[in-house]
Amino acid sequence: MAGGKDRAAVEKILEAAAADRRTSLTAPEGRQICEAYGIPTPRECLATSAEEAVRQAREIGLPVVLKIVSPDIPHKTDAGGVLVGLDTEEKVAEGYARIIENARAYRADAHVVGVQVQRMLTGGQEVIIGAVTDPTFGKVVAFGLGGVLVEVLKDITFRLAPTSAEEALSMIDGIAAAEVLRGVRGAEPADREALAGIVHALGELVTDFPRLAEVDLNPVLATATGATAVDVRILLDPDAAKEPVRFSREEILMAMNRIMKPTSIAVIGASAETGKIGNSVLKNLVGGGYAGEIFPINPKAAEILDRKAYASIADVPSNVDVAVFAIPAKFVPAALEEAGRKGVAGAILIPSGFGETGNVALQDEVVAIAREHGVRVLGPNIYGYYYTPENLSATFCTPYDVKGGVALSSQSGGIGMAILGFSRSAKMGVSAIVGVGNKADIDEDDLLTFFEHDENTELIAMHLEDLKDGRSFAETAKRVSARKPVVVLKAGRTSQGARAASSHTGALAGNDKVYDDILRQSGVIRAPGLNDMLEYARGIPLLPAPTGENVVIITGAGGSGVLLSDACVDNGLKLMEIPPDLDTAFRKYIPPFGAAGNPVDITGGEPPSTYRDTIALGLADERIHALILGYWHTIVTPPMVFAKLVSEVVGEYREKGIEKPVVASLSGDVEVEEASEYLYRNGVVAYPYTTEKPVAVLGAKYRWARSAGLVG
Amino acid sequence: MAGGKDRAAVEKILEAAAADRRTSLTAPEGRQICEAYGIPTPRECLATSAEEAVRQAREIGLPVVLKIVSPDIPHKTDAGGVLVGLDTEEKVAEGYARIIENARAYRADAHVVGVQVQRMLTGGQEVIIGAVTDPTFGKVVAFGLGGVLVEVLKDITFRLAPTSAEEALSMIDGIAAAEVLRGVRGAEPADREALAGIVHALGELVTDFPRLAEVDLNPVLATATGATAVDVRILLDPDAAKEPVRFSREEILMAMNRIMKPTSIAVIGASAETGKIGNSVLKNLVGGGYAGEIFPINPKAAEILDRKAYASIADVPSNVDVAVFAIPAKFVPAALEEAGRKGVAGAILIPSGFGETGNVALQDEVVAIAREHGVRVLGPNIYGYYYTPENLSATFCTPYDVKGGVALSSQSGGIGMAILGFSRSAKMGVSAIVGVGNKADIDEDDLLTFFEHDENTELIAMHLEDLKDGRSFAETAKRVSARKPVVVLKAGRTSQGARAASSHTGALAGNDKVYDDILRQSGVIRAPGLNDMLEYARGIPLLPAPTGENVVIITGAGGSGVLLSDACVDNGLKLMEIPPDLDTAFRKYIPPFGAAGNPVDITGGEPPSTYRDTIALGLADERIHALILGYWHTIVTPPMVFAKLVSEVVGEYREKGIEKPVVASLSGDVEVEEASEYLYRNGVVAYPYTTEKPVAVLGAKYRWARSAGLVG
Repeated sequence: MAGGKDRAAVEKILEAAAADRRTSLTAPEGRQICEAYGIPTPRECLATSAEEAVRQAREIGLPVVLKIVSPDIPHKTDAGGVLVGLDTEEKVAEGYARIIENARAYRADAHVVGVQVQRMLTGGQEVIIGAVTDPTFGKVVAFGLGGVLVEVLKDITFRLAPTSAEEALSMIDGIAAAEVLRGVRGAEPADREALAGIVHALGELVTDFPRLAEVDLNPVLATATGATAVDVRILLDPDAAKEPVRFSREEILMAMNRIMKPTSIAVIGASAETGKIGNSVLKNLVGGGYAGEIFPINPKAAEILDRKAYASIADVPSNVDVAVFAIPAKFVPAALEEAGRKGVAGAILIPSGFGETGNVALQDEVVAIAREHGVRVLGPNIYGYYYTPENLSATFCTPYDVKGGVALSSQSGGIGMAILGFSRSAKMGVSAIVGVGNKADIDEDDLLTFFEHDENTELIAMHLEDLKDGRSFAETAKRVSARKPVVVLKAGRTSQGARAASSHTGALAGNDKVYDDILRQSGVIRAPGLNDMLEYARGIPLLPAPTGENVVIITGAGGSGVLLSDACVDNGLKLMEIPPDLDTAFRKYIPPFGAAGNPVDITGGEPPSTYRDTIALGLADERIHALILGYWHTIVTPPMVFAKLVSEVVGEYREKGIEKPVVASLSGDVEVEEASEYLYRNGVVAYPYTTEKPVAVLGAKYRWARSAGLVG
Repeated sequence: MAGGKDRAAVEKILEAAAADRRTSLTAPEGRQICEAYGIPTPRECLATSAEEAVRQAREIGLPVVLKIVSPDIPHKTDAGGVLVGLDTEEKVAEGYARIIENARAYRADAHVVGVQVQRMLTGGQEVIIGAVTDPTFGKVVAFGLGGVLVEVLKDITFRLAPTSAEEALSMIDGIAAAEVLRGVRGAEPADREALAGIVHALGELVTDFPRLAEVDLNPVLATATGATAVDVRILLDPDAAKEPVRFSREEILMAMNRIMKPTSIAVIGASAETGKIGNSVLKNLVGGGYAGEIFPINPKAAEILDRKAYASIADVPSNVDVAVFAIPAKFVPAALEEAGRKGVAGAILIPSGFGETGNVALQDEVVAIAREHGVRVLGPNIYGYYYTPENLSATFCTPYDVKGGVALSSQSGGIGMAILGFSRSAKMGVSAIVGVGNKADIDEDDLLTFFEHDENTELIAMHLEDLKDGRSFAETAKRVSARKPVVVLKAGRTSQGARAASSHTGALAGNDKVYDDILRQSGVIRAPGLNDMLEYARGIPLLPAPTGENVVIITGAGGSGVLLSDACVDNGLKLMEIPPDLDTAFRKYIPPFGAAGNPVDITGGEPPSTYRDTIALGLADERIHALILGYWHTIVTPPMVFAKLVSEVVGEYREKGIEKPVVASLSGDVEVEEASEYLYRNGVVAYPYTTEKPVAVLGAKYRWARSAGLVG
């Protein structure tokens, strides 16, 4: 595409369309726009008489396609406005007359510009390439095979526009039926680079001209030596893709640092009365061990929980970083006004009664006040937030004190409580838990940016139902996930249903596939469910990043080996093909009827030394990158003996500087529960009674490591 | 197909092929066989000269297809032996000469029978219909769309042959791209009945003639008014589909009843020495509380664990139903001989060292001895078995005593231990746990038949890696699952890889899809993983069967509601469209900013009465068939308050005779764990920190209820 952009040509066409207040372009206009951006289209002319059509057909070469050109007939086929395969001059002449007649019959007052005479291409593979303006992500491009595959099976893939050349090529390979383009049944492979070139050019086109709301290149015909957009359909919307307000990274960090690591906090609506939110928040701040200053704000009390209370935040004698609002919604604007004048960095709006109950005006008012004073707002409609490095529990829930590297956020309060309960139960080390609620202001972007730079955070896990600014999220997540794993639970996967859409691509974009593709493009690990998100968050930071794809299963139970292999396939993990010398080395330790290969089946009745020796070999051999252990409870090697020997041998190699991810599935009587916990505490992600979970966590770690470029 | 079977015609062709020792049929032979079973094929003739080909083409009507007919050229296209679209007599004459020439060039010594002249069909939808002889299931039929859909996306479905007419139709609707056949993009719908007719006829054909090892009808061309098998390819194998040995239901029940409910048990190799298997087994029988007689067998002891020991089972003074073998493999044949003469019903072979270590001969010898004496063999290579109604723990593992209606079996010892541990940890009521190991004799069919008639068993859950006789299993499972849910964890889903296969259908059958389709056809609930199998086994019997598809979510946490809705879609559950009067009724109980509709969002801060009233309404309204509850931990309604109120209201309605499945997802701090257990004990399938599991269990219950015909 380099050097092939004729912006002026596009601008001219768009101006003409705007002058006519049109919401779509004609096919010839579409074709000209494509050509202006180097997207090949078939040879064609516009005829305004049958004679002209015949002459043009002769020049272009038979067979040809005739298509009505009229701004009033967007769906040409429905109007009998398309004739294909006209291979004699007589047929072209007849066809011209018929099309004009059909158009008149379809809509008598239609303005008919003429008839497009187009070289008919035959052979090759039909694909669809499109672009739409997604309400969450803005301009996205789409790629799929033509016909039934995209129509019925929805086999289509999306990326943020514009794509890099590499991303465009990843789309061509990213559909389920990608194999078709590599040539099946002896067909010639399609020119994938040419297709990627069109995707890339289309992405640039819609980015350069946001008014191009939806573009369908359908079909694009791909042969072994090129690709041509046979039909072009473009819808216009001058309001498409408005840019949302964005803060700079510096602005975000400045505010978020004061919010997450405040030197002082005011509780507006602090109360001495047990059961009140303003009482719980104050208690949790004090009881949680927060070392900064705490100022209860309450006009009716002089002292609350042994702390001097102030009638207004304005009366507080020192600076205040954060104001937690524990007052009814209707009192928030006035109090926020005062907090803003006081210069707080963050307003934590716990109360509900804003956008979520339909009171959008009140929420907008609050945001306007905050903007005026440079205050960032968390919430409203939240449980608050935790930041454990500061012993900060600014919430009406119970404090949390198991410190560690996992930062979590949730859009829903209920999910926040599940995060809290799971974390406490699993003794998960947490840096932060943040409720974002209605996301009137602070959203996942702000949190990602803070956690990216937060030395106390190793992994970020987020529950979200929507994104205010999907494009910004995708870009931020891409940057952050290159350094720290980002796990996302996207709720509402299945509820979007079909959006009303006029273009083909638009209709196909109305499902979860856009989220799925773009989250993957951003390096995000998408969790299929709540429990998966929590288990990924807990397990991923414990595992060292793998440096290669060779996974080996070592199992005492052949049955577990089979199920663990299934789980590897489900999670995109590659079972190493064991080379002969390594096979021999494993066989030295296992009984003659055991099976080397992969899984390495050491058989059930083996003593601890067999587990130990084979695991040590798996850690020592440089060609192996990750281990999955299948334990079978026996009298010879009881669960805790297994747990201790595994922890020891993994620890020994870690001390030698050899770090590989090791996960374990424990089959046995209830003692395997304690053994699994012991292993987990020692850096081996282990579960009882399941072969799926440990492999899923390893698979999630691999997905991140691959996207972060760590897997060789 | 009624009346349309000409068996003699088929027999004649097969005899001719057998006389030539051919392993495949020619296309004209294939076509004749199809016609003999009423499968339409295009008009065609066999020409042996160019002149004859032209004359025939004139009769049949142009355009025609020419195809080489030679038993030495199975892959006609590769040999340049197919020419399509010949639409003039000249082209037919030329084509004849070219095909003969190509055949000679391809293989000079090929025996050329002639050239098939076939009417060329155009238009319509290409599909593939086939039949293969599956190593597990015997004759199966396959249906898929033609071209890339089946080739690349493996969109194909299988059934046991012969199918009923209804099953054949379910195949046409059972592929992912089924919509294509109903007509997309304005295409006419295909004649689904005609396609089903061909599937049905093909199933009968391969059942009547087992020698037809593989049949490809590819493509079959389906139009709006019929379907025609355009190309037929048939491979022969006289050894295809040998019938395995089968016992009658009466024989199975007679033996299994004596094995599962024995009046006396001998332990061959009983030992006084702790750590020996023969010691553990005896201890568990005694300590587990088994009330029948127990006879230790050991030539070197007079008494073991205070019980008189016998040198040989022959010396035991009374009848013996079961002999548990706790001796090395090599001693088994002699001891089994004695046990056989003693008239035991079942030999429980704990030792390993048989087929699983390659010692197939020893295993065959043991089976032969057992057959001779009418003894059924469980194992070898197993942990033994439990049957709790008899307090029977015939195993070297620890006893199990939580009685209940779940019967479980496992092919692997490791998985058996996971079953034991999970059951104990979850306090799951179990009737039996059975290790089947190498399945030298007793297999899942025998167990299913016993559990079907066992009044102590409500649900059967089986881990299996293969089936000895898949057809028998499918038939038995179909019968049993109509009465009791059968859950199957099929391990090795992904490891089968591609079998060597000569036909198109054969290649496509070499994957897990055959298992998947046939298990579904049998009414089996397939669990995706080990933990799912265990959770389904635990939860399904607790839930009453739903009588309709209307599922309602009642949630305190909007966030849980969204995730629970996602889970409903994932699990094939239908969220009820709430009619206006019911909506009004729900609204009466929930705050004005709560959302009725479905999920019914009662919002977070509500008191116990709101949960109670809305759940009671959900139980009372006859239009609602199942409830999913989303709980959000608050001070107003703490976890145990929620658990008790739900248990109460469900119990009240149950007493009134209103039984609906109710499942719950609990979001909150660690107290939700106790609350979930309380709910589970009271018949509400509840889990903390997950929105997926409760819905998955409800979904599994629905799958069973639908296949058992209970959902109206």
